[in-house]
Amino acid sequence: MRVIGIDPGLRNLGWGVIEQQGSRLTHIANGLCTSAGKDLGARLLSLYEQLTDVFHSYAPEAAAVEQTFVNRDGAGTLKLGQARGIAMLVPAQAGLDIGEYAPNAVKKAIVGVGHAEKHQIAHMIGIHFPGVKLAGPDAADALAIAVTHAHHLQSSSRLSQAIARAS
Amino acid sequence: MRVIGIDPGLRNLGWGVIEQQGSRLTHIANGLCTSAGKDLGARLLSLYEQLTDVFHSYAPEAAAVEQTFVNRDGAGTLKLGQARGIAMLVPAQAGLDIGEYAPNAVKKAIVGVGHAEKHQIAHMIGIHFPGVKLAGPDAADALAIAVTHAHHLQSSSRLSQAIARAS
Repeated sequence: MRVIGIDPGLRNLGWGVIEQQGSRLTHIANGLCTSAGKDLGARLLSLYEQLTDVFHSYAPEAAAVEQTFVNRDGAGTLKLGQARGIAMLVPAQAGLDIGEYAPNAVKKAIVGVGHAEKHQIAHMIGIHFPGVKLAGPDAADALAIAVTHAHHLQSSSRLSQAIARAS
Repeated sequence: MRVIGIDPGLRNLGWGVIEQQGSRLTHIANGLCTSAGKDLGARLLSLYEQLTDVFHSYAPEAAAVEQTFVNRDGAGTLKLGQARGIAMLVPAQAGLDIGEYAPNAVKKAIVGVGHAEKHQIAHMIGIHFPGVKLAGPDAADALAIAVTHAHHLQSSSRLSQAIARAS
C-alpha cells in the first residue's frame, strides 16, 4: 500500500510517499510544495495545484496529515488552518480517508519519545530510509507522518486478522 | 459586474451574489454551503464542491471573503481557517482577485457603524434588497460582504477615472 504523509504549512507544505509491503517500508519520494503568488488566494491555489500533481504522480492509497498545534498566536493559527484546509481537501478529492496525528504522536512513533527535538525526526528518517535525500525538515516530518500512519494501518490490520481468527 | 461575497465557516459557509451596474446593485442569489460528512476531509470536500457549483451557476467576476476573527480559541480558529482555505481557493481557481474585509469594515459599510449587532446586517440587507429571501444570517453576511466589495470597486474605479481625467 502506498501512503502519503503531509505536513501542512502556508509557506512550505512537506509531503512524503512511502510503500508498505507487510512490515517493510520503502521510500518512494518526498518534497515541498512552496506557495508562490502575490496574495493569499494565489498562494493557496499554488499549494493546491502542486499537491494535486503529487497525488497524480504517486497515486497514494492512504493519507495522513499532521494535526496542527493551536497554541500559537491567532493570526498564525489562521494561516496554518488555511493551508491545512488544502492539505485535507486534496486527499479527500482522491477519495481517501485521512489519518490525523499530533506532532507528539509522530515523534513517539518515530523517535520513541513524544518530546523529541525536531532534528531527531530527520535523523531517524535518515536511518529508516538510508541514502534518501530529504527536500527539507518539513519533508522529513511528512515522511515521519507517513511512517506513523503505515504502522497504525498495519496494527489495525493485524488486530482485525486476530479478531477474525478468534471468532 | 457580478460580485460574490463569502462568509466562511466549517458548518455553514454563506454566499451571496449581486450585480453591480453603475451605482445600482441587484440581488442575484444567496445561500449556504453546509458541510456534511463523517470527517473533516469529507466536510471540506463537500464545502469545496458546493461552492464550486455556485461559481459555475453564477459566474462571478469579482469576489470578497470575510477576514476572520482570530481572537477566539485556537481550535476554533484552526477550524475556521480550514474552511477559509476552501473559501479562498475556489475564487482563486476561477482566476479572481479576492477582496478581504474585516467584519467591522463590513458593518461600517452596511450599517454605518463598526460595532453594529449581527442582526442589523440582515435588517440592512433586507432594506438594500427588498423582498429577497435570505438563506440565513451567514448568507446575509455574505451579501453584506459583496455589497462592501462592490462599493469599494466602484470608488476605486471612480478614483482611477478622476486620475485619468486630471492627467
